[in-house]
Amino acid sequence: MKKNLLFQPKSIAIIGASRDPDKLGFLVLANIKRYGFRGKIYPVNPKAEEILGYKCYQTIHHIPDSVDMAVILVPAFYVPEVLEQCGIKGIKTAIIISAGFGEIGGKGKELERQIKEIANDHQIRVLGPNCLGYIDTFQKLNASFAQSMPEKNNIAVFSQSGAVCTAILDWANANDIGFSRFVSLGNKADIDESDLFQEWENDNAAKVILGYLEGISEGDNFIRFAKKITAKKPLIVLKAGITSAGAKAAASHTGSLAGSETAVSAAFKKAGIIRAYNLEELFDYAKVFAFEPLLKGNKIAIIANAGGPSVMTADAIFQSKLELAKLNSITKAYLERKLPKMASINNPVDLVGDAKADRYKIGLEAVLADKNVDGVIVIATPQITTEVKKTAEVIVAMQRKYKKPVIASFMGGKKISEGVKVLAENKIPTFDFPERAVRAFEAMFEYSEYLDRKDKTDLILTENINKDRVNNLLREAHVAGIFNLGDSLDSLAAKILRSYGVNVAKSQLTKNTEEAAEAAQSIGFPVVLKITSQDILHKTDVGGVKIGLNNKTEVKEAFKEIMASVNKKMPEARIEGITVYHMVRKGQEVIVGGKRDPIFGPVIVFGLGGIMVELIHDVAFRIAPVTKKEALEMIAETKSSKLLQEFRGGEAYDIDAISDTIIRLSKLMTDFPEIEEVDINPLRVNERNKGVIALDVKMVLKYDI
Amino acid sequence: MKKNLLFQPKSIAIIGASRDPDKLGFLVLANIKRYGFRGKIYPVNPKAEEILGYKCYQTIHHIPDSVDMAVILVPAFYVPEVLEQCGIKGIKTAIIISAGFGEIGGKGKELERQIKEIANDHQIRVLGPNCLGYIDTFQKLNASFAQSMPEKNNIAVFSQSGAVCTAILDWANANDIGFSRFVSLGNKADIDESDLFQEWENDNAAKVILGYLEGISEGDNFIRFAKKITAKKPLIVLKAGITSAGAKAAASHTGSLAGSETAVSAAFKKAGIIRAYNLEELFDYAKVFAFEPLLKGNKIAIIANAGGPSVMTADAIFQSKLELAKLNSITKAYLERKLPKMASINNPVDLVGDAKADRYKIGLEAVLADKNVDGVIVIATPQITTEVKKTAEVIVAMQRKYKKPVIASFMGGKKISEGVKVLAENKIPTFDFPERAVRAFEAMFEYSEYLDRKDKTDLILTENINKDRVNNLLREAHVAGIFNLGDSLDSLAAKILRSYGVNVAKSQLTKNTEEAAEAAQSIGFPVVLKITSQDILHKTDVGGVKIGLNNKTEVKEAFKEIMASVNKKMPEARIEGITVYHMVRKGQEVIVGGKRDPIFGPVIVFGLGGIMVELIHDVAFRIAPVTKKEALEMIAETKSSKLLQEFRGGEAYDIDAISDTIIRLSKLMTDFPEIEEVDINPLRVNERNKGVIALDVKMVLKYDI
Repeated sequence: MKKNLLFQPKSIAIIGASRDPDKLGFLVLANIKRYGFRGKIYPVNPKAEEILGYKCYQTIHHIPDSVDMAVILVPAFYVPEVLEQCGIKGIKTAIIISAGFGEIGGKGKELERQIKEIANDHQIRVLGPNCLGYIDTFQKLNASFAQSMPEKNNIAVFSQSGAVCTAILDWANANDIGFSRFVSLGNKADIDESDLFQEWENDNAAKVILGYLEGISEGDNFIRFAKKITAKKPLIVLKAGITSAGAKAAASHTGSLAGSETAVSAAFKKAGIIRAYNLEELFDYAKVFAFEPLLKGNKIAIIANAGGPSVMTADAIFQSKLELAKLNSITKAYLERKLPKMASINNPVDLVGDAKADRYKIGLEAVLADKNVDGVIVIATPQITTEVKKTAEVIVAMQRKYKKPVIASFMGGKKISEGVKVLAENKIPTFDFPERAVRAFEAMFEYSEYLDRKDKTDLILTENINKDRVNNLLREAHVAGIFNLGDSLDSLAAKILRSYGVNVAKSQLTKNTEEAAEAAQSIGFPVVLKITSQDILHKTDVGGVKIGLNNKTEVKEAFKEIMASVNKKMPEARIEGITVYHMVRKGQEVIVGGKRDPIFGPVIVFGLGGIMVELIHDVAFRIAPVTKKEALEMIAETKSSKLLQEFRGGEAYDIDAISDTIIRLSKLMTDFPEIEEVDINPLRVNERNKGVIALDVKMVLKYDI
Repeated sequence: MKKNLLFQPKSIAIIGASRDPDKLGFLVLANIKRYGFRGKIYPVNPKAEEILGYKCYQTIHHIPDSVDMAVILVPAFYVPEVLEQCGIKGIKTAIIISAGFGEIGGKGKELERQIKEIANDHQIRVLGPNCLGYIDTFQKLNASFAQSMPEKNNIAVFSQSGAVCTAILDWANANDIGFSRFVSLGNKADIDESDLFQEWENDNAAKVILGYLEGISEGDNFIRFAKKITAKKPLIVLKAGITSAGAKAAASHTGSLAGSETAVSAAFKKAGIIRAYNLEELFDYAKVFAFEPLLKGNKIAIIANAGGPSVMTADAIFQSKLELAKLNSITKAYLERKLPKMASINNPVDLVGDAKADRYKIGLEAVLADKNVDGVIVIATPQITTEVKKTAEVIVAMQRKYKKPVIASFMGGKKISEGVKVLAENKIPTFDFPERAVRAFEAMFEYSEYLDRKDKTDLILTENINKDRVNNLLREAHVAGIFNLGDSLDSLAAKILRSYGVNVAKSQLTKNTEEAAEAAQSIGFPVVLKITSQDILHKTDVGGVKIGLNNKTEVKEAFKEIMASVNKKMPEARIEGITVYHMVRKGQEVIVGGKRDPIFGPVIVFGLGGIMVELIHDVAFRIAPVTKKEALEMIAETKSSKLLQEFRGGEAYDIDAISDTIIRLSKLMTDFPEIEEVDINPLRVNERNKGVIALDVKMVLKYDI
């Protein structure tokens, strides 16, 4: 396992430092100096004597002391050579700011490959290339060409886009938000988000982690290390690039529904990552998670000096997973005594338009002390008598006193700005519009729900799992060069699934009455007999089908009747025999499938038969391995799964058996990376305790060449 | 028709004017004076000689001249008397700012009723009560207790909530947005939104209309007059209070799906109103519609100095009704020649991080001149070399030159503020986050699609409509005191629907073979016979059902067989007879229904059979009267209607006949206000040109007492 990232250099070399104030090589050095880095600083520039008061060195080898970190700003073409020198010098961490690598393709790609190789050979951890750099407010290190230094605070940030970095920094300065570590990932030649997760898991300066990603490097690690983070603290990620021609094409077929956005969404869910869908959400969540205690439940109180905004906030709460708290009778009695008659003492609490700060204090004190209230949204509109600043101060004091999460919404512009300032300085999140407060509280509630879950350890499934047999079957397919293990119940796909305990319907082609009777016995009664002939399309029309046969005698009789009828009605048809099938009762049809995502591995899908999947896209996804609890959640997540419960007085179906099938399919794909895609469609579901049976299965294999 | 609203007073009386600077009676007078009203001003206060330099009058009758408008600020209890005096004085418009009316219930309600009566008697138009007042920047009239005067601009605003008024005003001042008319509607005792629609339809100072509503006064007028507005200019409305216990309960039953949010949403759609879902959207749309030419198509170009934000914007476009424009080859060739190599010349156009204003000019000029581009989103992130102000100036100049809509997104905080200022001053909408630009463009595109529609006149349906017969049937029900015209095919509901040309399946109870044969003849072959007896639950088990009977002989035979079998198997059963039904081929089942909304009248619903409606809520709504085009749109709007097309190689269904049924049901409910609810469930749909048949119908009546 690689270790040692960037985080505690005692000495830094700036390779490509420049005297020209317009050059990045100057700006980075200037930032390191200006923001007070207390270690040793060594500019490297063969043409300069000194820059900004620091002695310059011709090459890194000319530096007499050992160096912990290098910041590299030379043109891309020279970077491999420079990095090689860093390796020889024993430098452990390099930040490559230079651009011109993978992002330009061709030659750049080759240079990036070289970097990776050198980094690996010398065990150098590399940040970038093509990045803004690295900032650490705790160390007072600004090894970047950002135009400012953020405030110090316990939020750690990473971003794959340099431009998003600059926007975040500029926004943070305007909003009194500070950061601890700030990492521009660039092309992620070496250090990626998973490395940061490991680094920050036990880092107290990273109380909240924010990230912007366009691609995810290694799905396995991503989920694994993100999970460790989210067990301890919030990880909020904006994933861009979720739509693409590829995702668009993902449509009608079960397998193809498991497109890339699907996989990302399932992976975030599995890892407990709080997902922001745009920068506004990322920032809103950052404030709320960093500055407020976690929301413990979903009961929200609204306090306002205005009816309209309360109505809008209540609308938003109603449409979320949150609920309006029911205030207890003591709270209401208190409010009734203390507030004017026109006030509303129910939630939303309306303090009436002429409310001054004292009335906000009464309202806040009452609802914050109420055990039925988990969090509060305080709204102020600029009325004539509104004491904007004092009200903000009351909110700060009350939040400090009761330690429940409070979000403010001061609505307007100039007139409320003084209050917004007080709130920002005191780290009470405030939003222009109360709907954003609702959204942020909802994200908090979802995270606290995630933390409450009990199924964090995965159940290990062993019963009816025959790994060796699947190995043999897959080898058989490989040797034969078969990749589509389609389409009959006698196929390799069926055999493989059966070896993992999936109940796939059996069938057997038979040539005579005895064979048919034996087959029926082994398949299990009742059975169906169907004529098998490439010449016969409409089997029923020629008397080629007999259903509901309950014993050997009936089977033999039926065999003879079918043969007689077919011989009479289509004497010229070439007959292969008669196939015996187990006869399936009527039941609900569902689909269980899996498709391997290139990043996250097997994405398992569940949905109800035909229309619900193909037309309504009423499907649920999880990343394998799927736990029992996840499997049951998947089923419950689809709207149409209500059909599996006691719908309209009908019977309840065997949901447990479906979840078992999901888990088995998930395990199969986890155990055998060569299985690219599996489809059980349909899986027929019987009543509770009567099991499920796969009526058609398909499997696609893919081998690394 | 009432006329004359508030808009051009030459003289104003302020009844309840006060010398106390903390009183609203002072603030309103001060505002009228301060912002330069050029008409005559008469404070009315029996205890004062003069206020703010104006001579005071004891009562309105003491004013020697005629007065156009009164602003009333006396306590609620005195308002009716004062309003009566205004009527006698011949005042045409009164703004009642005083609170304490309908909003407090009880006594207040009674006072409000009195106001309405007096207003009606004296033909006074009344704004309020319980409102902030009225502002008109064109007349320099600020007859409100708002703490500021907005800039002058061609946006008219109304709001039902005073608090939302103050928030809007404060926001507008902070964002360089101005207004022409600004109306606080308050309790809407008289003047409501529909009055304003009429007033503003031809008002050039109301180029864009913004509104905030909690309730809608008269659905009919609302749709009628809103439609007239939207044919000419954008009407953007935020409707709050869309969720309620009532709306929550609206769930499983067809009729109850037509809850109140459903009706609002259908009404807005019908009237072409641009709907904002929160204040942020209201403001965003206001800027874009007021300051930009209308987006003509949905092809958007993105220009940015950064990859990340472009990706996010492209994501948002992909998820909207907009599309990324395909730049034509000349544009691309131009960009290739003019931009550095690292730039991306495809849409999104990436000018690269070090882009200065000149590069933005090149990019903007190229895409704005491109015929494939309907609108442009320009993104700037604060990089080292970014010329924030100059870039803003370039955007202004290019928008002016090419007159296509351009929205800017300058992302960040302090560093980009100078550019944001230039854009705001020059009325180029700019948003912190580009996703909001996408949403605003989408709203514009939807409005321009609405304007392009061709079915603005409603088709009048006359064929097979027998209004007289329905009148008679309804009278029959009324006399009999029946309100639920359920549940058989022989019911009044069935007869009423048939009288409006809906094809309801027929049935007839018969007593002997001859009657059965005759009934079958008149109903049409093939038919089904079913035993009818309250004692027999499982008709098939006792041989009580015969299907697929194709002629009289078969019917007679079947009648005898049923009777014989039933007599043998259940000799004790009391037999009413045998019912003859038309036998319906297999087809797709849909639901057509209607429920009268108290505000908007009949809301018509369409959905596919059972599960799709009840579980998936895959339904479409329109306000009656529904046009042919709307009916077809309703059908197409449901996802599951794909099942009616050639789904999986099956036949196509008779969509035209469904739309005909929708229109007939819509007309029936429009013609007869006593019909509260109609349900056709299921309506069986045959293949194309084979029609539809209603297999079960229900109707609920309601009479005004």
